[in-house]
Amino acid sequence: MDIKAYIKEVGQRARGAALAMARAETKVKDKAVLAIAASLEHHVGDLFDANRRDLEAGNRRGLDAAMVERLELTQRSISAMADGLRQVARLPDPVGQISDLNYQPSGIQVGRMRVPLGVICIIYESRPNVTADAAGLCLKSGNAAILRGGSEAIHSNQAIAACIHRGLKEAGLPVDAVQLIGTTDRAAVGELLRMKDCIDVIVPRGGKGLIERITREAKVPTIKHLHGVCHVYIDDKTIIDKAVAIAFNAKAQRFGTCNTMETLLVAEAVAKPVLQKLGAMFREAGVEIRGCDATRAILPDAVPATEEDWPTEYLAPILSVRVVKGLDEAINHIRQYGSQHTDSIVTEDISRARRFLTEVDSSSVMVNASTRLADGYEYGLGAEVGISTDKLHARGPVGLEGLTSQKFIVIGDGHVRE
Amino acid sequence: MDIKAYIKEVGQRARGAALAMARAETKVKDKAVLAIAASLEHHVGDLFDANRRDLEAGNRRGLDAAMVERLELTQRSISAMADGLRQVARLPDPVGQISDLNYQPSGIQVGRMRVPLGVICIIYESRPNVTADAAGLCLKSGNAAILRGGSEAIHSNQAIAACIHRGLKEAGLPVDAVQLIGTTDRAAVGELLRMKDCIDVIVPRGGKGLIERITREAKVPTIKHLHGVCHVYIDDKTIIDKAVAIAFNAKAQRFGTCNTMETLLVAEAVAKPVLQKLGAMFREAGVEIRGCDATRAILPDAVPATEEDWPTEYLAPILSVRVVKGLDEAINHIRQYGSQHTDSIVTEDISRARRFLTEVDSSSVMVNASTRLADGYEYGLGAEVGISTDKLHARGPVGLEGLTSQKFIVIGDGHVRE
Repeated sequence: MDIKAYIKEVGQRARGAALAMARAETKVKDKAVLAIAASLEHHVGDLFDANRRDLEAGNRRGLDAAMVERLELTQRSISAMADGLRQVARLPDPVGQISDLNYQPSGIQVGRMRVPLGVICIIYESRPNVTADAAGLCLKSGNAAILRGGSEAIHSNQAIAACIHRGLKEAGLPVDAVQLIGTTDRAAVGELLRMKDCIDVIVPRGGKGLIERITREAKVPTIKHLHGVCHVYIDDKTIIDKAVAIAFNAKAQRFGTCNTMETLLVAEAVAKPVLQKLGAMFREAGVEIRGCDATRAILPDAVPATEEDWPTEYLAPILSVRVVKGLDEAINHIRQYGSQHTDSIVTEDISRARRFLTEVDSSSVMVNASTRLADGYEYGLGAEVGISTDKLHARGPVGLEGLTSQKFIVIGDGHVRE
Repeated sequence: MDIKAYIKEVGQRARGAALAMARAETKVKDKAVLAIAASLEHHVGDLFDANRRDLEAGNRRGLDAAMVERLELTQRSISAMADGLRQVARLPDPVGQISDLNYQPSGIQVGRMRVPLGVICIIYESRPNVTADAAGLCLKSGNAAILRGGSEAIHSNQAIAACIHRGLKEAGLPVDAVQLIGTTDRAAVGELLRMKDCIDVIVPRGGKGLIERITREAKVPTIKHLHGVCHVYIDDKTIIDKAVAIAFNAKAQRFGTCNTMETLLVAEAVAKPVLQKLGAMFREAGVEIRGCDATRAILPDAVPATEEDWPTEYLAPILSVRVVKGLDEAINHIRQYGSQHTDSIVTEDISRARRFLTEVDSSSVMVNASTRLADGYEYGLGAEVGISTDKLHARGPVGLEGLTSQKFIVIGDGHVRE
């Protein structure tokens, strides 16, 4: 197979389909998204068959348990995909929205119209549900999508892509609006990363190795996050039980996600009662604590934390804990070691909450909420195509709006520049 | 001089100053911007002296007339700089603006807060007024700025920078918030382009050579436009005099600017009256017309246009003219040859205007207005740091909003993820 020629053709087809998608009316796009949802539920048998082939191949290749779990399709995960698509269909169409259309002193009206980006390329690993989620968001936002899933999920992704194509056909939209790369050859990724003419943005989702490679090599702009070193700071002006519940949820609700807390910061005035309670809860949940000296004075079983622990994203049942003097030290710690992903303060003090919200420069900054809530669905975006910790364009969970841009529109009646 | 070490120090100082700028209150930032305006007017003599040294050096090196014109500071251009700064001071502060703060089903409130990008690096040529404009916009938007002007304007830029530093001191802000690169060594640009740690975005302004080099080499994200191949399409449902006035202004109001019309498209049904009038006007204004066959049938003096003319940005008194069947052909021409900068339709037909606005994918799309109006000041942005034809982040004239980003803020009361 000539990978270069194949990817070039995929790109050109996507560019053609993007033109049709940009002009597609809302009801047509919604019809496609709903038809995809129905097709997924109707072809559950095909999806299970394809998924079984991936799971068997994965077992043969000795995939670890976490990878297998992410790979597996269940009745429940298929329903969740279909529900996600139905939610996306219900969201307002961002394309063509005109905002801020105001008269200027010269008499022209100037406003902004939201438009699709064009062709979105999503490069991801293991979870086959990304195939459906990403397709739904790209279609609704009037874009064409090129999807490159992991080789370990190729059959599952192809079965899902078949449902997507049925939905597109049913709505009369071009099937090239969502193309799944049919080869597992890694050279295909290299070609995608260089295809500036045909791809407007690349969204990489996966492990650090993948993201680092893509960031380094991509000639096309990317929307991404590399690390999720998320913090919860428990202030001394707090209700202990509330703080403990937030911190426990932020760590233990799921270990492997980017918005899981990796470091807990506790004000020294409340460190003893907070850490005694949390220590017992985390012990029961099997979470290893790596603490500073002050933490270990309260929790003698804790492993000593080293300088390397603070910037580390464990993605595992491990938590680093540091006792700090107060808000300033907490903000400085987050600034020094954080990854600008998601950070939360637990406090009843409004002035401290105000300072934390303003001074912590992360894609999501929270007051009295678990970092696990940093998510497109929880934020009302319907779903997310990824989370961005970059500052340009989209920041935080990226939904429909992040897949669009705004152009200026000007309406005059013979107006010229003086 | 160790360029690498020097630029590294500039970057680190900028990063430090950015932290102070992000926290600076509106009244302090406004005080600085107004003090800079006053200082420019107070030190007119210094500015003229410095500018004379640049002009003399430029004449010795044989700078062309257009370059010299751009380089020259006059009483009027200095007043314009000061007025621009005062306008920026009057604009609402974008930093900290909270929008869309809504309750979600879980009970958390989710909104977005506008925040500075951090450190903006502007690399530009000849016009010394960019030094003041860029500084004002960066300061008001809570950013630090690194300015790298052209070597031909170094003394003028240094004199302006001295006024900027006086203004910053008067307001109690760090002088490192606006740093002018003190060397004309081109290696400095190479260092800036690689400084991902200390620079958040680079805005290149200047000729194609500069922009192409920066786009190719930059490791830091850029906000830019490369070409300005702007079109006016005169539809057949139009009032001839209105159309003629818009087209003439779009070309002849100024020749060397990126929003100047380079190609005129005319519907065949009105080609004769439109081109006869415009032909005479352009002849008088010294504008050379390069026309398609149908154009030359009406204007026999026109030079035959070749395929190379359509994608060309002349930046000169030259205009390519093509007679088209109607709207579809005009849109297709713009899609094929345009640069997604600014395109305008002249029509009295609302449905055609609606289609043009929707289907032309340029950073500014206009109805019945001259392309020369594509400008931050005309759009009510106060000023512009540049114009972007990219789709990500900022598109069109980039003012205060384009120099900021939005982070998510979440406010709960003990909320956790179920």
